[in-house]
Formats: sequence, structure tokens, C-alpha cells
Amino acid sequence: MTSATGSPAYRRLSVEERRAQLLEAALSLFAHRAPEEVSLDDVAEAAGVSRPLVYRYFPGGKQQLYEAALRSAADELEQCFAEPAEGPLTSRLTRALDRYLAFVDQHDMGFAALLQGGSVIETSRTTAIVDGVRRAAADHVLSHLAVPEPAPRLRMTVRMWITAVEAASLIWLDEGKEPPLDELRDALVEQFLAVLVAAAARDAQTADVVRRALDLETPEGPVGELARRVLPVVSDAGHLLSPGTGPRRP
Amino acid sequence: MTSATGSPAYRRLSVEERRAQLLEAALSLFAHRAPEEVSLDDVAEAAGVSRPLVYRYFPGGKQQLYEAALRSAADELEQCFAEPAEGPLTSRLTRALDRYLAFVDQHDMGFAALLQGGSVIETSRTTAIVDGVRRAAADHVLSHLAVPEPAPRLRMTVRMWITAVEAASLIWLDEGKEPPLDELRDALVEQFLAVLVAAAARDAQTADVVRRALDLETPEGPVGELARRVLPVVSDAGHLLSPGTGPRRP
Repeated sequence: MTSATGSPAYRRLSVEERRAQLLEAALSLFAHRAPEEVSLDDVAEAAGVSRPLVYRYFPGGKQQLYEAALRSAADELEQCFAEPAEGPLTSRLTRALDRYLAFVDQHDMGFAALLQGGSVIETSRTTAIVDGVRRAAADHVLSHLAVPEPAPRLRMTVRMWITAVEAASLIWLDEGKEPPLDELRDALVEQFLAVLVAAAARDAQTADVVRRALDLETPEGPVGELARRVLPVVSDAGHLLSPGTGPRRP
Repeated sequence: MTSATGSPAYRRLSVEERRAQLLEAALSLFAHRAPEEVSLDDVAEAAGVSRPLVYRYFPGGKQQLYEAALRSAADELEQCFAEPAEGPLTSRLTRALDRYLAFVDQHDMGFAALLQGGSVIETSRTTAIVDGVRRAAADHVLSHLAVPEPAPRLRMTVRMWITAVEAASLIWLDEGKEPPLDELRDALVEQFLAVLVAAAARDAQTADVVRRALDLETPEGPVGELARRVLPVVSDAGHLLSPGTGPRRP
């Protein structure tokens, strides 16, 4: 176990590169097995290095390696959310979700194990890292809604949707990656619009966000399509509107 | 620590009653402190019994007591969901959410600790109990939608909403139990309607569910109110509808 592999790569990498290589090997293993089923030997073997070398970089052993890998994955995940504040909100959301879902697709079981908890190497620190990603995601979405001081109602709506997206990702992994990613992504964008519009019914700040967002959308975009598809479903429910407003269809 | 309290209650309880009393004491403690900060001595003291007596009922110590308390809370929680299949869907949902939110209110930090994970006494068994409650909640909702074989899309919509409700409960606890419970409950009912309607846009089964559900609603109910409040927010977005459908307002 103390023998070096002797491969050229073993000597050429800088400290930073070696650390990144070990984290990548660890993440790839965590993506296919539960954390408790991955040993330091596995990581050493996957990286083509010796076990002592892994220990030199991660003296805290597997727990430290897991947390570092998680931290690195969290950083990568947070980068998915970055999106310029230009164009229709749904286009920005679509692009960010495409990157996020590609990350879920790639990290697979490691993503699931992490979020589902119950792992023996989960700690308050790993939980804090995951919560940090959730907060970052919510902050990104809120920043795109361009509200200087989002009130509790709007924040709750956004955080609920973030959690629902997480749940959808886990269900998607659990169901053999069905439906196709673009269908899932469109559904998530539509759910966001739906919960935002529903929340707007009782919250002036959210209503303002919705009005501004709708202004930027086009008939060919997701909102136009959603509206045209929803209308026939609800068109028979004119009896629910008060006489003052009148039924949508005479 | 081996001395009995000598209170009349100490001798009078049956085995079942004593077990229930210990679980209740444990749940009440877990509701106000993190599981790792609750000792068996605390439970004995809260129940007014000796530590050995607690051990007689729970020879596995704190881990066993915690799992039993969790199992008991999970059973109680699942009972919240039971609701006769009568009347408008939103009324049923409102009643079930009232019971669920009262449970969250009562169990407080214990509820949060459990769902947020990262506790040292969390195991794959406790995770399985929590997942079981989530599944039961989704099954209850699906049964009220009266679809013999819910397809993946409808199941995903329901499970996403269940997770969002969970997130809302945690945020609510985190924000000092604001907004008032009835506001939170109405918001959750409205979010359910919103996501169901959005999903109906692309799924015939969900569209059928929505049409049947809307038929049972009244103008005075939550759907009528939501519709009347949403229309003014989206009324300026007529430009998003195709010429074929025509703008909602001339």
C-alpha cells in the first residue's frame, strides 16, 4: 500500500493539482456508491496514487476527504446558478436549471446520498454545506427578481421552490432519469411561474415581481406557452369567478 | 438514580400506558432540544420515573428511545392526513393541513431537528421513518385526486409539493412561527392548486384531475378567491397569448 504507482502523472502534479485530482476521484466514487462504502484505498486506487499520499493531503482521513469533496461539489454547484441579469426571467432560469440538472446527472448517487441524509459520515458540517448551497440558490433567484428587500412571503415562495427542485432531482434519479432532462427543466420553470403567480395573489411585492417578469416574456416563450395550455384546462371553471368579474367565457 | 419516585402514577400505569408516557416525555424533550442534548436521565426526570425503569422499557438506551419516539410521532403525523373523500378538494386539504401544522407547532424543534438531519443519532432507520411519512402524505393526496394509477408526472408534482410543505414548515419554525398558521395554510393550499394547474398544462391525467377538482369548488372557496386575486396580476400579459386565443381583455 505504500508503493507509489510510478506513473509520470504521480510526480508531475503540483500540490493544488494533486489535491484537485484526489477530490475528483473521491467525487466520482461518491457518485456511484454510498459514502460509507467508499474507502481511502478506493480513492487512492482511482487516483492512481498510494494510500499514504491520500493521507498526506487529507490527514483527517475519509471524513476530511468527504467534507472537502462535498465543499468542492458545493462550489461547483453554486457556479451553476450564476447567470447574467438579462432577458426574460424564464430564459435565465432555463439556463441555470440546465447547468444544475447536468450537475445532478453527473454526480448521480453522490448527490442523492448527500441530500437524503442518513449517511454515517454526515455531520452538522456537511449539513451546513448543503444548507449553504440552498441559501445560495435562493439568493440567486431572489437577485434575479430584482427586489431590493424581499419580504418573508417572497423569500418563502422561492425557498419552497428550491426545495421542490431538489425533491424533483432526487425523484428523477430514483426513477431512472425519467423524464428527459429538458422536459423536467421545463416543468420546473413552469412550477416556478405557477407558485410565483399564486403567491402574487396575496402579496403586493410578489405581484410587482410577476408584472415586471411578464412584461419581459414573449408569446413564443415558456409563459406564453403555459398560458395557452392552461386556459383550456381552467376554462370551464368560470362559475368560480364572482359576478363582478364575470366568467372568463360567456 | 435507582430510587422510584413513589408517586401514585408510578405504580398505577399499565405497561402500555407507561411506554406511552415515556415516549410522550421523550417527544416533549426532543421538541425543545436537539436529540443529542437529551439524556435518558432527562427523560426519566420528565416522566417522574427512575432511569432503570426507562432502561427496562428501552434496553437499547437513547437510540432506541429516540427511534420509538420518532415512530410514535410519525404515526401521529400520518393520522393527520386521514380525511374523508367528500366535498371540495381544497376543503379536505385545508383540514389536513390544519392538523399537520398543529403537529409542527406542537413538536417544534424536534420536528425541525428530525427533518434537517445532521443529528448524531440519525441513522438509516430514522431516515426511513421520515421517508415513510413523506410517502404516506403523497399517497393520501393522490388518493384524494381519485386517479386509479397516477402516472410519474402527477406523482412527481404531488411529491414536490409535499417537500415544499415540509420546507415551509421549517422556515415557519425558523422565522418565529410567522406568518399566522391560517395564512400559511391558505398559502400552501394555493401553491398546491398552482402547481397542479401548471402540471395540467402538459399532462392529460393531471388536466383531468384539475377539471374534476374545479367542478367541486365554489366561488366563495379558495379557488374562486385565488382566481379573482390572480386575474388582475396577469391581466396585462395579454400579449403572451397567441392571436388564435386572443387576449384575455380586449
